[in-house]
Amino acid sequence: MTTKELMMRAKQEARAGVPDAQQRNDALRKMADALISHTDTILAANKIDREASKDSLSEVMMDRLKLDEKRIAAMAQGVREVADLPDPLGRTLHARTLPNGLEVKRVSVPMGVIAIIYESRPNVTSDAAALALKAGSAVILRSGRNAWESANAIVQAMQEGLAAAGLSKDRILLVEDKSRDSAKELMHGNGYIDLLIPRGGAGLIRTCVEEATVPVIETGTGICHVYVDESADEDMALNIVENAKTSRPSVCNAEEVLLVHRSKLASFLPKLQERLTKRDHPVELRLDEACAEIIPGTPAGEADFDTEFLDYILAVKAVDSVEEAIAHINTHGTHHSDAIITDNEDNAAKFTALVDSACVYVNASTRFTDGGEFGLGCEMGISTQKLHARGPMGLEELCTSKYVIHGDGQIR
Amino acid sequence: MTTKELMMRAKQEARAGVPDAQQRNDALRKMADALISHTDTILAANKIDREASKDSLSEVMMDRLKLDEKRIAAMAQGVREVADLPDPLGRTLHARTLPNGLEVKRVSVPMGVIAIIYESRPNVTSDAAALALKAGSAVILRSGRNAWESANAIVQAMQEGLAAAGLSKDRILLVEDKSRDSAKELMHGNGYIDLLIPRGGAGLIRTCVEEATVPVIETGTGICHVYVDESADEDMALNIVENAKTSRPSVCNAEEVLLVHRSKLASFLPKLQERLTKRDHPVELRLDEACAEIIPGTPAGEADFDTEFLDYILAVKAVDSVEEAIAHINTHGTHHSDAIITDNEDNAAKFTALVDSACVYVNASTRFTDGGEFGLGCEMGISTQKLHARGPMGLEELCTSKYVIHGDGQIR
Repeated sequence: MTTKELMMRAKQEARAGVPDAQQRNDALRKMADALISHTDTILAANKIDREASKDSLSEVMMDRLKLDEKRIAAMAQGVREVADLPDPLGRTLHARTLPNGLEVKRVSVPMGVIAIIYESRPNVTSDAAALALKAGSAVILRSGRNAWESANAIVQAMQEGLAAAGLSKDRILLVEDKSRDSAKELMHGNGYIDLLIPRGGAGLIRTCVEEATVPVIETGTGICHVYVDESADEDMALNIVENAKTSRPSVCNAEEVLLVHRSKLASFLPKLQERLTKRDHPVELRLDEACAEIIPGTPAGEADFDTEFLDYILAVKAVDSVEEAIAHINTHGTHHSDAIITDNEDNAAKFTALVDSACVYVNASTRFTDGGEFGLGCEMGISTQKLHARGPMGLEELCTSKYVIHGDGQIR
Repeated sequence: MTTKELMMRAKQEARAGVPDAQQRNDALRKMADALISHTDTILAANKIDREASKDSLSEVMMDRLKLDEKRIAAMAQGVREVADLPDPLGRTLHARTLPNGLEVKRVSVPMGVIAIIYESRPNVTSDAAALALKAGSAVILRSGRNAWESANAIVQAMQEGLAAAGLSKDRILLVEDKSRDSAKELMHGNGYIDLLIPRGGAGLIRTCVEEATVPVIETGTGICHVYVDESADEDMALNIVENAKTSRPSVCNAEEVLLVHRSKLASFLPKLQERLTKRDHPVELRLDEACAEIIPGTPAGEADFDTEFLDYILAVKAVDSVEEAIAHINTHGTHHSDAIITDNEDNAAKFTALVDSACVYVNASTRFTDGGEFGLGCEMGISTQKLHARGPMGLEELCTSKYVIHGDGQIR
């Protein structure tokens, strides 16, 4: 099927109406069952993908691509958990009876058609489809090329689940055209695509923001900062910096840059060096001039303060004040997650008010930025934009609203 | 000042923090006073605009451009009313204490910098600036060329009001470059512009949607429909159709297309013709074939069902069912405001569920789609998109949110 045909089908399906909550949840559970019962087919497809990719992908990327029985079971479990979440549709967000008797209600309704362009991570196929289905939308998935066969096998299983629950297979469609043209068609699918979510690296997201004429939610690259203020508890700061940097360096909420108040350099930096460089997996410290005078490390280049390393690397810089820290973060950050470690309430208040990021922390690790951690139950990614969704995107953010007005003949 | 310099100034001002509610309201009241005390200057500037435009603008456009003492007083009053509205900032939208003691709060915060590109309507200058200021953002205004001098005089007055309240004049900036380049610079002002709102005709909005790389909210052209169902009360239908079409034909929530259930044609159309064509300002009826067999009128061309007339013209079409009416509206409408007149609850429910528009009405006029009418207190336009804002946009929709998380050393 051409991408245009896919978009037309999805739109038609979305316009036909929304299955009720029970039907959607039933379909999700049958999709989970089908993922399990298709485990062999999915693993065979995944093997083809991995064979074809083994010379072109890094070790980390190969690991992301790889499926096994346990990972498929986890995907199915994820789909079941989405079924158990409360229905995001039909909530009354606003209700008012006007003096003339008109009843004005704003209610949550589906977006319509959601398109998702993502990298070669097979589990995103089921995660994204499950969330979009629960949110009442038809979904068009465009997988990264290296996971093409896996995505096909997963979507076939999920479509079987849809059919078993009496829903149309057109609720979950997979792009068939491997070329870049298909991504561009989605980006320009005005009239068909109600929301496009790019999930992946900085390049993909930039292309979508610059090219797309359909509405896009940017999901986040994260150059996240921790600022150690003059009054910070140094032990707390060490724990938080180590956790934010090393607990999972490849994710977007990991710390990339450490800012330290100048008055703290002499006491804090030696402890930092001890903690971060003498561990099993040592962290490379890239130091500005002031910091390099105190501890050994790599001299930081200008680009180091504008880089999402996603690795065991931390750029470290001295600042003169909380104001300088805030200005640095607003200029060099990606408006994702930033933290201050301080005992000074005024500085904490200044930091949370003026740092222009989706999530601002006082005395905690940036690693908590996550739909599950925040209690949303799930997550479609972390939005670093300000329109519609900001921070972890749950089911609510995958819906829109509509005004429904009932009268008995009112005119204006 | 170049447009780039303007954007940098506005961003710097936004990053400096938000004046508290009392300061913002004080500034709004002083701006209103300054509009009144500058009445002579503003009228003189407006005269220059009107002299320069008199050969190029239509009568309706000249009327929109024209200011007089009464209109300036109304602008000032509008600004005072914004001061009286509740503060949209600092509201807690979500609060949760996690099991580990982290306090996660989602609070409403300003967008940052809002840019507004609008047509030659001087009153939009003060309306838009007042709403953006109240919502805590710095605003960049780009007026239509024909109102350039008026916009300058109005902004000078408002900046005097800002200064009198101790706020920076950079909170309200007016683009100085009359060429189209300045509009394009705003559309591509990534890193400076947090939200762009085009207010004007279909051409301007289409250009912004297609060109802009900054986040845009489309405000609405309206091809609004009224569908007279099989079971409709005909007197109610006549009242609503007349009101929706004729009470103010030049606005976006006016009716452009009437759909009539085929079983109603013989009884309803003659009454419609009587009511709409024999009034002081008669309505031209553009009829599809089935309707033309019953009453006199202009034969409708295909384009008539896809046109925002903004005039005393109504396209009329017969449909076989509520389903056909819904499909027609979803295909030919602009997702703005559409109404069903019916006594059948099932059809009403079907219509409100399946018509994919910002506002769907049962037995009431589409003309109610308005921030003031809906009780929002004000309005920055009517969004016909699904992201962030849908329907009348009030102060809430001009804000974004941020997660603020307080801990005492939590790590993940």
